[in-house]
Amino acid sequence: MRAATIRDKEILIEQHPDPQAGVGEVLVRVHAAGLNGADMMQRRGLYPAPPGSPQDIPGMELAGEVAALGPGAERFALGERVMAIVGGGAQAELCLVHERQLMPVPERLDWPAAGGLPEVYATAHDALFTQGELRPGEQLLVHGGAGGVGTAAIQLAHAAGARVTATVRNEQLRGQVGELGATVIAPEGFAEHGPFDVILELVGAPNMSENLQALATGGRIAVIGVSAGAKAELNLLALMGKRARIHGSTLRARPLEEKALVARLVEHEVLPLFDAGVLSVPVAETFALDDAAAAYDRFAAGGKLGKIVLMIGG
Amino acid sequence: MRAATIRDKEILIEQHPDPQAGVGEVLVRVHAAGLNGADMMQRRGLYPAPPGSPQDIPGMELAGEVAALGPGAERFALGERVMAIVGGGAQAELCLVHERQLMPVPERLDWPAAGGLPEVYATAHDALFTQGELRPGEQLLVHGGAGGVGTAAIQLAHAAGARVTATVRNEQLRGQVGELGATVIAPEGFAEHGPFDVILELVGAPNMSENLQALATGGRIAVIGVSAGAKAELNLLALMGKRARIHGSTLRARPLEEKALVARLVEHEVLPLFDAGVLSVPVAETFALDDAAAAYDRFAAGGKLGKIVLMIGG
Repeated sequence: MRAATIRDKEILIEQHPDPQAGVGEVLVRVHAAGLNGADMMQRRGLYPAPPGSPQDIPGMELAGEVAALGPGAERFALGERVMAIVGGGAQAELCLVHERQLMPVPERLDWPAAGGLPEVYATAHDALFTQGELRPGEQLLVHGGAGGVGTAAIQLAHAAGARVTATVRNEQLRGQVGELGATVIAPEGFAEHGPFDVILELVGAPNMSENLQALATGGRIAVIGVSAGAKAELNLLALMGKRARIHGSTLRARPLEEKALVARLVEHEVLPLFDAGVLSVPVAETFALDDAAAAYDRFAAGGKLGKIVLMIGG
Repeated sequence: MRAATIRDKEILIEQHPDPQAGVGEVLVRVHAAGLNGADMMQRRGLYPAPPGSPQDIPGMELAGEVAALGPGAERFALGERVMAIVGGGAQAELCLVHERQLMPVPERLDWPAAGGLPEVYATAHDALFTQGELRPGEQLLVHGGAGGVGTAAIQLAHAAGARVTATVRNEQLRGQVGELGATVIAPEGFAEHGPFDVILELVGAPNMSENLQALATGGRIAVIGVSAGAKAELNLLALMGKRARIHGSTLRARPLEEKALVARLVEHEVLPLFDAGVLSVPVAETFALDDAAAAYDRFAAGGKLGKIVLMIGG
């Protein structure tokens, strides 16, 4: 099979042996695979794939068809449309996924949307509801509302009855982000728009002091991105005074059983909202597998609304 | 009534008008009132009492007898032994407490123990189980194991089947703290003894970087004391990598309904363990109300095991 391959911090397309499905595994013929911030870090050598995942083939999410079933795999049939988060290896013609991590693709979704759904929706759902315990009527602030996780979080929180504010640096994207269900503001002076019950931090350390100011009593900050820096100052007295909590999380490093639980939650609480037409996956641009390097450059350039997705195979 | 009174950062004993019980309130004739770190901060003008509490009479916990009942107060009878956390005003001959904040005093406990129980046990229970969600078999680290909250936390966690490690700076107290149910270590290099599922931070900012190193995947840090400093550095990537969370909390600023919930939890989950003889309130020293200033100096000097308690009235 052909696959995007990391060699000396470059993305090449190389030939790899076809993987074989083991017990409980499904071989997926990949049609679409979204790019994520973690791929950019992995290309730079900063975020190796977890053990058990291909180390040199990037890609943390995919959508495709079931091409083969390993012994005992029975949740899906040959040819069925499936999607998943994986530890790595998604940006390839074929990818092995444990069947407990797979989800069905909602009928309404085309391949680009399905290939860009799993990572951002699972991440946003986990951060908002599992960690942040966001409740109807609460005030949410999303830092970085135009990105993949940001657009997913805005739509999920809006659908759940929360009142959503989002910061977007690029002025030209603010209108489109607002249409997803948020009041969109510039990042400067965001605390004036609070207090917020939950803050989704996709940008990083520079926001943390103001986040604590902007937080309501009993508020929660979920940190899932640090593109702008990781070293934050934390005033513990302010944290105590707000009776606040700060969560840090990643999906990638979790063991199979935890990832499977996340997949079940997304199936149960998110996919029905796609069937109902309430949620969407904004796709900024698609690239053919052969143009993977250009796709990475486009992602790294920023300033886009929604996902960059690699189209693979048919 | 006579009461400890804060005047220009000094503790004096002054005469105040007797308070009158309003709707749902109980007038308590105070027998014992424990000192806490917050009293030291309030004396220095750094931690004013919340609105609705006496501003110049310190004291956040008490035990005593029901002296009068306001309209509608019916949970306790005249003369019954009661104890409570209050927003302020406990270090006085009389103190008003809403009946929903009052708890019965377990029969086995004398006045000094009862007067030193509510704040530290409610704080430790809330931090360990409500915030930290400590589970049987987990590893707990208590920073500052010889203090009031520390000795309560060690005993509660030990009784709940957790494995407890405690840091104690004063070498001479380590043996006694160990007898409460902890492996006692020096503060230096504590991370070597981890990983810990829950860390109870009673000391403050200087520990925070090493706390994050010492934390297990999925671990929780509960910050409830910052005597050694409030400004911490926080590495957000490390927080994400550990999938950790940091809680800050105080009991004092909470509204009545939340304090009442805490009192119900302590009644239900903690007081039965006093009846069973499993828990104790180590009392380092008692002082008469007239010697309140000396009691404060003794507390501030540190190096003690357990509580400093003011004995008031008969």
